[in-house]
Amino acid sequence: MDKIVRIDMGAAGGPKVSFEPVGEYAGLGGRAVTSLIISKEVNPLCHPLGDENKLVIAPGMLSGTSGAMSGRLSVGCKSPLTGTIKESNAGGQAAQVLARIGYAAIILEGKPKGDDLYKIIVTPDDVKVEIDNSLKLLNNYPLIEKLRAQYGDKVAYMSIGSAGERLMLASSIACTDPELRPTRHCGRGGVGAVMGSKRVKAIILDDAGRKQRAPKDPEAFRDANRIFVEGLRKHPVTGEGLPAYGTNVLTNVLNEAGGYPTRNFTSGVFEGGAKLSGEALAEMEIKRGGKATHGCHRGCVIQCSGIFNDKDGNYLTKQPEYETVWAHGGHCGIDDLDTVAKLDYMDDNFGLDTIEMGVTIGIAMQAGLAEFGDSEGAIRLLEEVGKGTPLGRTLGSGAGITGKVFGVEKVPVVKNQAIPAYDPRPIQGIGVTYATTTMGADHTAGYAIATNILKVGGDVDPLGTEGQIELSRNLQIATAAIDSTGMCLFIAFAILDQPETFQAYIDMLNAFYGTELTADDVVELGKKVLTAERDFNKRAGFTSADDRLPRYFYTDPIAPHNQTFSMSDEELDGVYNW
Amino acid sequence: MDKIVRIDMGAAGGPKVSFEPVGEYAGLGGRAVTSLIISKEVNPLCHPLGDENKLVIAPGMLSGTSGAMSGRLSVGCKSPLTGTIKESNAGGQAAQVLARIGYAAIILEGKPKGDDLYKIIVTPDDVKVEIDNSLKLLNNYPLIEKLRAQYGDKVAYMSIGSAGERLMLASSIACTDPELRPTRHCGRGGVGAVMGSKRVKAIILDDAGRKQRAPKDPEAFRDANRIFVEGLRKHPVTGEGLPAYGTNVLTNVLNEAGGYPTRNFTSGVFEGGAKLSGEALAEMEIKRGGKATHGCHRGCVIQCSGIFNDKDGNYLTKQPEYETVWAHGGHCGIDDLDTVAKLDYMDDNFGLDTIEMGVTIGIAMQAGLAEFGDSEGAIRLLEEVGKGTPLGRTLGSGAGITGKVFGVEKVPVVKNQAIPAYDPRPIQGIGVTYATTTMGADHTAGYAIATNILKVGGDVDPLGTEGQIELSRNLQIATAAIDSTGMCLFIAFAILDQPETFQAYIDMLNAFYGTELTADDVVELGKKVLTAERDFNKRAGFTSADDRLPRYFYTDPIAPHNQTFSMSDEELDGVYNW
Repeated sequence: MDKIVRIDMGAAGGPKVSFEPVGEYAGLGGRAVTSLIISKEVNPLCHPLGDENKLVIAPGMLSGTSGAMSGRLSVGCKSPLTGTIKESNAGGQAAQVLARIGYAAIILEGKPKGDDLYKIIVTPDDVKVEIDNSLKLLNNYPLIEKLRAQYGDKVAYMSIGSAGERLMLASSIACTDPELRPTRHCGRGGVGAVMGSKRVKAIILDDAGRKQRAPKDPEAFRDANRIFVEGLRKHPVTGEGLPAYGTNVLTNVLNEAGGYPTRNFTSGVFEGGAKLSGEALAEMEIKRGGKATHGCHRGCVIQCSGIFNDKDGNYLTKQPEYETVWAHGGHCGIDDLDTVAKLDYMDDNFGLDTIEMGVTIGIAMQAGLAEFGDSEGAIRLLEEVGKGTPLGRTLGSGAGITGKVFGVEKVPVVKNQAIPAYDPRPIQGIGVTYATTTMGADHTAGYAIATNILKVGGDVDPLGTEGQIELSRNLQIATAAIDSTGMCLFIAFAILDQPETFQAYIDMLNAFYGTELTADDVVELGKKVLTAERDFNKRAGFTSADDRLPRYFYTDPIAPHNQTFSMSDEELDGVYNW
Repeated sequence: MDKIVRIDMGAAGGPKVSFEPVGEYAGLGGRAVTSLIISKEVNPLCHPLGDENKLVIAPGMLSGTSGAMSGRLSVGCKSPLTGTIKESNAGGQAAQVLARIGYAAIILEGKPKGDDLYKIIVTPDDVKVEIDNSLKLLNNYPLIEKLRAQYGDKVAYMSIGSAGERLMLASSIACTDPELRPTRHCGRGGVGAVMGSKRVKAIILDDAGRKQRAPKDPEAFRDANRIFVEGLRKHPVTGEGLPAYGTNVLTNVLNEAGGYPTRNFTSGVFEGGAKLSGEALAEMEIKRGGKATHGCHRGCVIQCSGIFNDKDGNYLTKQPEYETVWAHGGHCGIDDLDTVAKLDYMDDNFGLDTIEMGVTIGIAMQAGLAEFGDSEGAIRLLEEVGKGTPLGRTLGSGAGITGKVFGVEKVPVVKNQAIPAYDPRPIQGIGVTYATTTMGADHTAGYAIATNILKVGGDVDPLGTEGQIELSRNLQIATAAIDSTGMCLFIAFAILDQPETFQAYIDMLNAFYGTELTADDVVELGKKVLTAERDFNKRAGFTSADDRLPRYFYTDPIAPHNQTFSMSDEELDGVYNW
């Protein structure tokens, strides 16, 4: 990972590939690389779909090594959905392969004049950019099938579906999993539209002949990795709950906590929750010959994913995540897992963020385009998005725009990005994260659910305001660092609770890079990343007034706790005072 | 005008009317009243269509007097289109009648829970709020016809069409002209949606038995008014150009100056300009038995409007304004006045801002929904808005959202409001106003065209950067003051050029109120209004980063001058340094 490849898609005479040393980004990865490059190189006032925006693709610091859980890929740009800086990450094989090929980043810049569509083939020897108009408007599943016929199964694919090509603000970038399915998505913030604006349909990553990246101290790395893996296996969340039931183990938990936003955030409890639960999902998966336990990339020891087969036992989609089940399920008053799985498949195929689309369909239901609970209606609305009809294009623009178009006042968005599966009124800590993260509403940016609800890393009363600012601040800093290492965020459960697992994580970094990082250095890395992101957003025109939840969270209490969001403006403005 | 009537549409048990003394707003009017009240009473972070927003309706300081040109009505709120404070003003009879009834302001606040539709009847004795669901989804022409059957012709009507009821962000509030036609619109910023969110369909203003407001010094007032009128009649713009050809006299002027934005701002000259010109329009109007000279309210001595009859000699619409002819004409590559007039009628009927809708249809053409120059296509698209189809609702959300939904990068908006009929690249002064006004792109907020192109009030080279900041600053201050007096902005041509006309304008104010205002005091009033507006916007989260044109105006030169917008950020940030 000592090089960066820069591809100017707008160069006169066709795309131009150039290579440069990794320079100031040496030893960094993932979100640190994407956010530092975007903050430095991109005009914060540019149009996100214009030629001044860039799309930076970066594997994590430990991606491509034998270290467990190191398969996250970061994608960064100015977001067309939020207008902020954006880092969106995904699992799948892309990070591992790209890291082994040896690139710390691919930077896509400029945009071509015509409407030719391109694919990029990255190998250890070369980077080729080729026109391939036969791929136009293919969705992800048929697209990958077509590419596999040419490039085979020993590569990793990144791609956009029709949504990204149509520049939809809810569009994602798909990464293939070990079985070459386009199921792992950099979902949030419309990163697919940025790739689409540069007319790049697919990136084929081929590390043929390359081995895993070698640590400076192989023995220490192996030892640290062993302790790290042991720690993940012994923690109840990463060793039991997630492997058995996936992220959807949270449905019952959040429903019981009264923090499960139901029918467009009008109740904190969904009466159909049990039918959507991780327990019900796992049972269904196993019964139909799918899998309740599966890894999204090689080297994963948590295996929180699964395989969802349809009623006939045929593959339909990967195990939908908790947030997907919520967005397409309880948020829309739908309690049918087959419907949710079909919508998950459609999102993956069209190349859409499941959270944004589920929330958007709920807003469409609020506007009367379908009834809450209407499975067929939800499928029909999502089909419109796939077809690119005027209605579909509006829905594909996300919840904020759909709410404006259809005159819905109460729309759960922060910085125009949909609030995910945790109501911030009964769980104030996650509300702090939604309001203040540099990303727009994003649970992963500072997952206060861990401490507010799961009691991991301490215990902060979800209903109270005390301790929430510190909690969100510390989690946002830790997350920015973890997102830079290429580690799956789920390691946080174990490293927050188990000091020896946290130490093993640090030891892995040091053994690999020959450094002597301490916990404080990791914190400093997180702060450095957040500072660059905040600076970008400030120059883009964001102020503390944007670091707020929509008004109705402050004025409308929600059952069963009948509470509003109670964090004061002054408290929220203190998150970044460290 | 010593009282304010406040109507809480959301009161438990139904709308509640209360009266209060004018208090701190005594002696003020129009924009000063709307902006000071909104800035003081409305939470800048509220949802514009929620119950915390207010709609303030205020006649000008001299409205309802015998003073010429004093018929402008201001409407203020937080704009659902821009998110900023908004003052949108219109001619017609409403300001005169409301002022004679004696209200300095009507404040609509709260919103009702159900979907009943209301009308408000304001008389000297009473203010009644009545449910009238028979008015639901009526457009303005049939609505006013129905109301006239009940309330007659000696009143003034304010109303929203289907667009406002549907909460469209481009929706307007219509005011009837002397012939009771709903042709004068508070057009910009989606004020119709705010009225619609409060479920108020129409306001009937009945000043039965009331006389004109009496000046403190009737004789001095009469004398000043006479000099003022003489000044208007002798100035070439207000005495000749506007009466003969209306505002559309500008088509040839702007086209010759290379500042006429053609086909979505891709050229500064439209080859079909002559066919759209004020000269051609006046000839057509007269030939068909319409009128080329007509006043929008009693007491107007400029008479810049007209009556446009169709080919059969039947009334179709009022004379479309220059900006309307441009938006539906040259911006869309359409050179047919009958098409433009039909679109103008449809906008008035549905209750839509002609500028926003014309620009939006041009964006839809850019996206491929119709060809540039396709009259039938433009009409078909606007019909969708009238029907409230999903496509229509998207278009009715304005140019910014339409651009996002259809993936159009180059969309001429500032603060999400469409840039009107003057390209800011060959006319830098108007670009300064677009970028920095508190209103989102708005030519009327500081009409630099006067000095850049018409050479009124001096001569500042439109292509250069020198003097543009001072020009826009001074015009923005003067405009904020004029918008407070209830005077039509077109008096500016005469008062900028003729010191005795300016003095007569001041004398009218002093004779009416018994004050001793100087020119400096008028400037201070303008600054006070702008300061309150800027403060609101700042609290709403707007920063200097929002005081910019879209990026492509800085990067894409436009023919024939092949110039980009050249004002530096530092210069723009200096507009409000006074």
